[in-house]
Amino acid sequence: MTRTLITGGLVITASDELHVDVLVEGSRIAALATPDSHGWTADRVIDATGKYVIPGGVDAHTHMEMPFGGTMSCDTFETGTRAAAWGGTTTIIDFAIQPRGGSLRQGVDAWHEKAEGNCAVDYAFHMIISDVNESTLGQMGALVEAGISSFKLFAAYPGVFYSDDGQILRAMQRAADIGGLIMMHAENGIAIDVLVEQALARGERDPRHHGEVRHALLEAEATHRVIRLSQVAGAPVYVVHVSAEEAVAELVQARDKGLPVFGETCPQYLFLSDDNLAEPDFEGAKYVCSTPLRPREHQAALWRGLRTNDLQVVSTDHCPFCFKGQKDLGRGDFSKIPNGLPGVEHRMDLLHQAVVDGHITRRRWIEIACAAPARMFGLYPRKGTIAPGADADVVVYDPHAEQVLSAGTHHMNVDYSAYEGKRITGRVETVLSRGVPVLEDAAYVGHRGHGVYVPRGLSQYS
Amino acid sequence: MTRTLITGGLVITASDELHVDVLVEGSRIAALATPDSHGWTADRVIDATGKYVIPGGVDAHTHMEMPFGGTMSCDTFETGTRAAAWGGTTTIIDFAIQPRGGSLRQGVDAWHEKAEGNCAVDYAFHMIISDVNESTLGQMGALVEAGISSFKLFAAYPGVFYSDDGQILRAMQRAADIGGLIMMHAENGIAIDVLVEQALARGERDPRHHGEVRHALLEAEATHRVIRLSQVAGAPVYVVHVSAEEAVAELVQARDKGLPVFGETCPQYLFLSDDNLAEPDFEGAKYVCSTPLRPREHQAALWRGLRTNDLQVVSTDHCPFCFKGQKDLGRGDFSKIPNGLPGVEHRMDLLHQAVVDGHITRRRWIEIACAAPARMFGLYPRKGTIAPGADADVVVYDPHAEQVLSAGTHHMNVDYSAYEGKRITGRVETVLSRGVPVLEDAAYVGHRGHGVYVPRGLSQYS
Amino acid sequence: MTRTLITGGLVITASDELHVDVLVEGSRIAALATPDSHGWTADRVIDATGKYVIPGGVDAHTHMEMPFGGTMSCDTFETGTRAAAWGGTTTIIDFAIQPRGGSLRQGVDAWHEKAEGNCAVDYAFHMIISDVNESTLGQMGALVEAGISSFKLFAAYPGVFYSDDGQILRAMQRAADIGGLIMMHAENGIAIDVLVEQALARGERDPRHHGEVRHALLEAEATHRVIRLSQVAGAPVYVVHVSAEEAVAELVQARDKGLPVFGETCPQYLFLSDDNLAEPDFEGAKYVCSTPLRPREHQAALWRGLRTNDLQVVSTDHCPFCFKGQKDLGRGDFSKIPNGLPGVEHRMDLLHQAVVDGHITRRRWIEIACAAPARMFGLYPRKGTIAPGADADVVVYDPHAEQVLSAGTHHMNVDYSAYEGKRITGRVETVLSRGVPVLEDAAYVGHRGHGVYVPRGLSQYS
Amino acid sequence: MTRTLITGGLVITASDELHVDVLVEGSRIAALATPDSHGWTADRVIDATGKYVIPGGVDAHTHMEMPFGGTMSCDTFETGTRAAAWGGTTTIIDFAIQPRGGSLRQGVDAWHEKAEGNCAVDYAFHMIISDVNESTLGQMGALVEAGISSFKLFAAYPGVFYSDDGQILRAMQRAADIGGLIMMHAENGIAIDVLVEQALARGERDPRHHGEVRHALLEAEATHRVIRLSQVAGAPVYVVHVSAEEAVAELVQARDKGLPVFGETCPQYLFLSDDNLAEPDFEGAKYVCSTPLRPREHQAALWRGLRTNDLQVVSTDHCPFCFKGQKDLGRGDFSKIPNGLPGVEHRMDLLHQAVVDGHITRRRWIEIACAAPARMFGLYPRKGTIAPGADADVVVYDPHAEQVLSAGTHHMNVDYSAYEGKRITGRVETVLSRGVPVLEDAAYVGHRGHGVYVPRGLSQYS
Repeated sequence: MTRTLITGGLVITASDELHVDVLVEGSRIAALATPDSHGWTADRVIDATGKYVIPGGVDAHTHMEMPFGGTMSCDTFETGTRAAAWGGTTTIIDFAIQPRGGSLRQGVDAWHEKAEGNCAVDYAFHMIISDVNESTLGQMGALVEAGISSFKLFAAYPGVFYSDDGQILRAMQRAADIGGLIMMHAENGIAIDVLVEQALARGERDPRHHGEVRHALLEAEATHRVIRLSQVAGAPVYVVHVSAEEAVAELVQARDKGLPVFGETCPQYLFLSDDNLAEPDFEGAKYVCSTPLRPREHQAALWRGLRTNDLQVVSTDHCPFCFKGQKDLGRGDFSKIPNGLPGVEHRMDLLHQAVVDGHITRRRWIEIACAAPARMFGLYPRKGTIAPGADADVVVYDPHAEQVLSAGTHHMNVDYSAYEGKRITGRVETVLSRGVPVLEDAAYVGHRGHGVYVPRGLSQYS
Repeated sequence: MTRTLITGGLVITASDELHVDVLVEGSRIAALATPDSHGWTADRVIDATGKYVIPGGVDAHTHMEMPFGGTMSCDTFETGTRAAAWGGTTTIIDFAIQPRGGSLRQGVDAWHEKAEGNCAVDYAFHMIISDVNESTLGQMGALVEAGISSFKLFAAYPGVFYSDDGQILRAMQRAADIGGLIMMHAENGIAIDVLVEQALARGERDPRHHGEVRHALLEAEATHRVIRLSQVAGAPVYVVHVSAEEAVAELVQARDKGLPVFGETCPQYLFLSDDNLAEPDFEGAKYVCSTPLRPREHQAALWRGLRTNDLQVVSTDHCPFCFKGQKDLGRGDFSKIPNGLPGVEHRMDLLHQAVVDGHITRRRWIEIACAAPARMFGLYPRKGTIAPGADADVVVYDPHAEQVLSAGTHHMNVDYSAYEGKRITGRVETVLSRGVPVLEDAAYVGHRGHGVYVPRGLSQYS
Repeated sequence: MTRTLITGGLVITASDELHVDVLVEGSRIAALATPDSHGWTADRVIDATGKYVIPGGVDAHTHMEMPFGGTMSCDTFETGTRAAAWGGTTTIIDFAIQPRGGSLRQGVDAWHEKAEGNCAVDYAFHMIISDVNESTLGQMGALVEAGISSFKLFAAYPGVFYSDDGQILRAMQRAADIGGLIMMHAENGIAIDVLVEQALARGERDPRHHGEVRHALLEAEATHRVIRLSQVAGAPVYVVHVSAEEAVAELVQARDKGLPVFGETCPQYLFLSDDNLAEPDFEGAKYVCSTPLRPREHQAALWRGLRTNDLQVVSTDHCPFCFKGQKDLGRGDFSKIPNGLPGVEHRMDLLHQAVVDGHITRRRWIEIACAAPARMFGLYPRKGTIAPGADADVVVYDPHAEQVLSAGTHHMNVDYSAYEGKRITGRVETVLSRGVPVLEDAAYVGHRGHGVYVPRGLSQYS
Repeated sequence: MTRTLITGGLVITASDELHVDVLVEGSRIAALATPDSHGWTADRVIDATGKYVIPGGVDAHTHMEMPFGGTMSCDTFETGTRAAAWGGTTTIIDFAIQPRGGSLRQGVDAWHEKAEGNCAVDYAFHMIISDVNESTLGQMGALVEAGISSFKLFAAYPGVFYSDDGQILRAMQRAADIGGLIMMHAENGIAIDVLVEQALARGERDPRHHGEVRHALLEAEATHRVIRLSQVAGAPVYVVHVSAEEAVAELVQARDKGLPVFGETCPQYLFLSDDNLAEPDFEGAKYVCSTPLRPREHQAALWRGLRTNDLQVVSTDHCPFCFKGQKDLGRGDFSKIPNGLPGVEHRMDLLHQAVVDGHITRRRWIEIACAAPARMFGLYPRKGTIAPGADADVVVYDPHAEQVLSAGTHHMNVDYSAYEGKRITGRVETVLSRGVPVLEDAAYVGHRGHGVYVPRGLSQYS
């Protein structure tokens, strides 16, 4: 077994900041020790002096090669996981989709087929249930057995992924029985579709109207609704991509009562706003995603929620579509713009910037980006921390390096960056995935197929 | 014109308690004066010494001769309005129902046909929109013109009256345009139907299960949802028959923000509880209505809401079905029990009992039973108060008389009383409807056909 | 007895808007009647066609001839009540002050001496207890007997009027026993004095610092504290001159629980802001009062509180000091500026402007300016409404007249106006005080000594 | 340096549960490693198979040898820290008291004298400021330098430790400047003293009245007040011994806004209630402490607060007085009963019982008892966790052992147990303090003087 020793760095986990050395044996972390207490030898020594040694990031929300509105998100598992690695993310959890009319298993199989042998880093799956019925409810248990313990439903997208409240309730009840976790896209899609139709009829067809019709109150409404349904079902619920302060308020209120209600937000909601949606020349289309970007004032509530732990996870909802050829399907009709933003590469950096900016502490950075998503989705402590026994997914992070985000330099397979020109302090220097170098001195040394499927246990969050 | 003089009583309105005499000329109140300041002569003098002189009650929620689940509510406009008169209620607002597939107007016509020439006291109509679509939305304006300015939608009863959130939103938008008021039955019917099916599958078939499956949290959920939709639409909303304390909390929270959100409760929620639903030998069926009776602990929140004006109106939701032959359609399957309780006769008395019990003040009694419903539904000050120019709908109420409620003595056309044996302090003694005696010394002197249709203006509540 | 008939106007009370005629006999309102129903003759007929007929205003918070910081508020009962009459206010409740070391009665006697024979309109008294102790607690009952049923304490002004929490609690307990109402100046004076000292030490000596040191959170804190003390005492509490939105929030929260907690605000907090305090050349001193003017953003919360009835009363806290010779005592030390603003004359007009501006309805205007203060302080229905039996304190108000507020034209004995140049739509035309004209066609026809002391009953508010 | 190896156990920290071995070198933890990855040899091997390996407890609130009401808390630093060790607590933070009229330093010196050379385990100090004035404010900085970074003030106990709101504000401002943390005893002592006097005057003299006069609302009031003062000061605040659900609600509300507001509760509030205060024959005196024990219903809010992290720390407020000779000073006058309970020995066990009972998770047990107090008071990661570099304060805990708490078997120097007869699942087996065994196989092997003073850094909590 190869032994790797990481010395001299500041090891940062969700709970600790320690000046300790890290010994990796094979794919696992074997030991942590104070620098002067051990006489470890190693095949490879990584000098992390002046650097942070952090767990590889866990991105709990990606959509690689996902069909949407007649096109396909433009990162494959190969290009997407490589970009993830560049950004210090060593595990992604992608959403397998039940084909309409097919079984959950068919969806899982299709996703395994896309991913297997193609990934630079490890991956796991959530399951999108397109059609909640007796049959698919019955199949949920087998998926939990197969390491897929979380199931996503949509209160949005009528006619596509939409589940009605009865279906949501049933799925939650079932999840409560088998220890699964229901993830909700919480927007009132039925009401939104009315507003979409009315806006188009009024001639409001530009990208910025996307943000207006997907009303913050309709996100808050759906958030409240799925919380209530989860109370009736006696089940926990995880709300994806929270963007509106009114929705955060619903989570706060529920959590104050001690309910097992969880929330995720994404860098785009923390750093971008509806000002971007209003960029001229259809440039706003680059920022079309759902839930939509909100007015800048909402950001404070999101940061506060991250600090107070009313939001637990920051993932990317990475779902890239090229500006040319994909986003422009919606010229003249914002409702036809493929929904999604590229982001898997920059989450760790953007959140480090938030540390620099004073929004969060270093430990909280690691918690929301690594430990909490791993706990939430049954990967902890294998993923998400640096501890003996954990997978040796380790990032050496230079907190002082500077970089500028740009489509010209990023590694995602998409023709624009949502953060073009943004300056970031901090940069990933070295990445180990299960003990194997993927990035060394900011150069990619990984390979397709290194990443493997990681079956997940039950959510450990409470 | 006949002149009637009511002397010596304590005139109580929503705002005042005054020792004044009331002069009625023809159908209207002509003047109020201090007893010693006038020298009025009259054709009829009613000595109200030691009594209260109050406005006739306005019951804003009745269902006479309403088809439900294959049967018909068992009070006709004739029997129902006569019972109302006995209880000091001189105006009812009944719900005309759009026939599925038909026009709103057809529903109104049908209701006019049922009521015209049959009523003991005056009546007006709300409109139930069974099917919100471009056509019915378009017809709403004409109804407002015809004096029907409030429209009821259901978040409950999928497949029957249910409107989805898009339909509710559209109707609210339309109401905002034309000054109409949307009334909501706020229960999540889609989720409830799941719980009904599951309960029946588990063999839970007794009336008490009716209360369990119609979960308080699902009333609160729908209440919150319709409030949010009304915010998006920029429209006021009136929630009917609020019964759960969690639903009251939603109203409180919305009203604290200054939103035009209103709530009604009914005597059954204030005086009865799920203990009644659990009465043996299928007796619980007598108390089956929706929203359902709640555990006794909820009553405190309702009384508090009435005191703090977070609930504005108490109406009856009078919808009687006989125990024999109607309620027993649901033996062995609570979901088949016709929903509804008799109540139109006893609202004024029960609320006076609440005065005696210290829950509310005398003025608040008149406000929630007379003035507020009249204001809410565009009848004020013609109805709901005692003031020069108002219709002479006047009740002389003996606050010291005692009575016992019973099916043996009540005047509603139904074979049981929900309050059998309940002792009440206070009793209606005399009732004038537009100046004409309907009850004199607790004897009925009215006649079928006296009552007329009263077109309503827009809601004046704020 | 003189008979006066007011015809053709729109009578507006807190509860009604009626086209009725008003008959006054002697000092009382004798009757209301529809114009066509009566054949009343009268000695004097006031044609109110196109005008509002409203109750005379009740200003529940004035300080005439009040000693403060070595000077005296510059309106006497004569000049102050005359100005009140000009503005349509026919009753003031002034604060008698217990002399330090003396008895409550001594304070009352001193105030009677100042007022008796000097007033243009009626007056009543609250009592400021400067020193809560066994003796003064014992004297409270006698004051209630004498028509002084409300007692003001200060959480502010240590060393002057300040009562500690134990004194406040004791006074509340005593008030609960005798039916009295405790009024609280709710600012944490102990903490504020620290901030004052620190500000002065930093050289912050201008009027605008007055607003900064009297921190909104310290108003909110004291508001919350007196509410909690009132809960412990089982007593109601009325908070005077609420100005901070955080304080409103405390009232809202308490009232949602059904607690008998009440709040007053003043026109200066609704129309002025700390921008005024920052006016150059010491002009800011004109706006120095406590609680202080707040940033403009607080106004929305006050208006909302008035609409939702979380604030019940608007009074003036009229306490004028001339800019020259009084306010300038505090040049170079804001803490020496006499606290107070002139306002008794313009409350009815400013609140009518709020009707015009859409903040409140016409009925709410009358409620917060006439009926609610009368009820709150045991004067209703003698004062505060237009009803048979009430004192004939009646104002004919022209809603279309325009005026400009100015020290050049106002009638208060003070050398500046806090609203200099402000345009108002609406103007008092005629004022009756107990049936006697005080203002006719906007000309003063009253006389010193017409106004009499009005002993008050217990608070009727709930 | 002695090497100790702890093998086979489940290492539980606030963040992790890991099957790892722990290597101790001298007084520090040198390394953690997976059992199969290391070939460590050691002088002493502790087999923890089937046991928990946890950090030694940190009790952030004790009062050893504290003068109170003419007597002295009956545990010395010697007996108290030995009892702590028996219960798995390896660090206490005791409260040095500024002598009235003396300097802070004098208080510290006195406390050092009491503690030095006498302790079985390590100790640190908070500072009680008896008299906040310019001089003592100025001395706070030197104390922070000396490792005393937290300062306790009292809103209770007028005439003894009481600080008024101005003093509290000044101390908070000063703390904000120097990075100190203000700890507050949050009860409105001024109001409570009124209620005490009134109760005694009514002849209510038994221990149970102690709970009644120290009203829950007066704890909530003071909690709200100190939060507001901390907002004004821009300082964090830590509320000691929170017992009332209304006080928890204040913390929740503040923390929802993101304020740096922290709360501690104690086992007595979680496991005992005012039923104990009502025990006959003066037995209730055993449970007299302030804040007082509350009705049992409050416990749910405290547990919920601990789960939601609205309460962060559980300490003991250990302040024992013997029933005979001390508590009985208050026979016939509850206000004379020395305030305090023995508890330092049983905190870890009682909280493990809470794990068994399902109130909290194992990790949360360690967080609230070890990690959070260490972080809060600047001792982390030296104390409060198991990590390389940390002090080797390690407890081997048998989660399956059973014990019964009793004065007959406990090691505190007090003649009664507040938990007499209570059965506990779980027991401390072995305790290391800085690598040195203090307890081995549940036998005391420590010695007086092993424990040393630990200067603390600034609070690291956020």
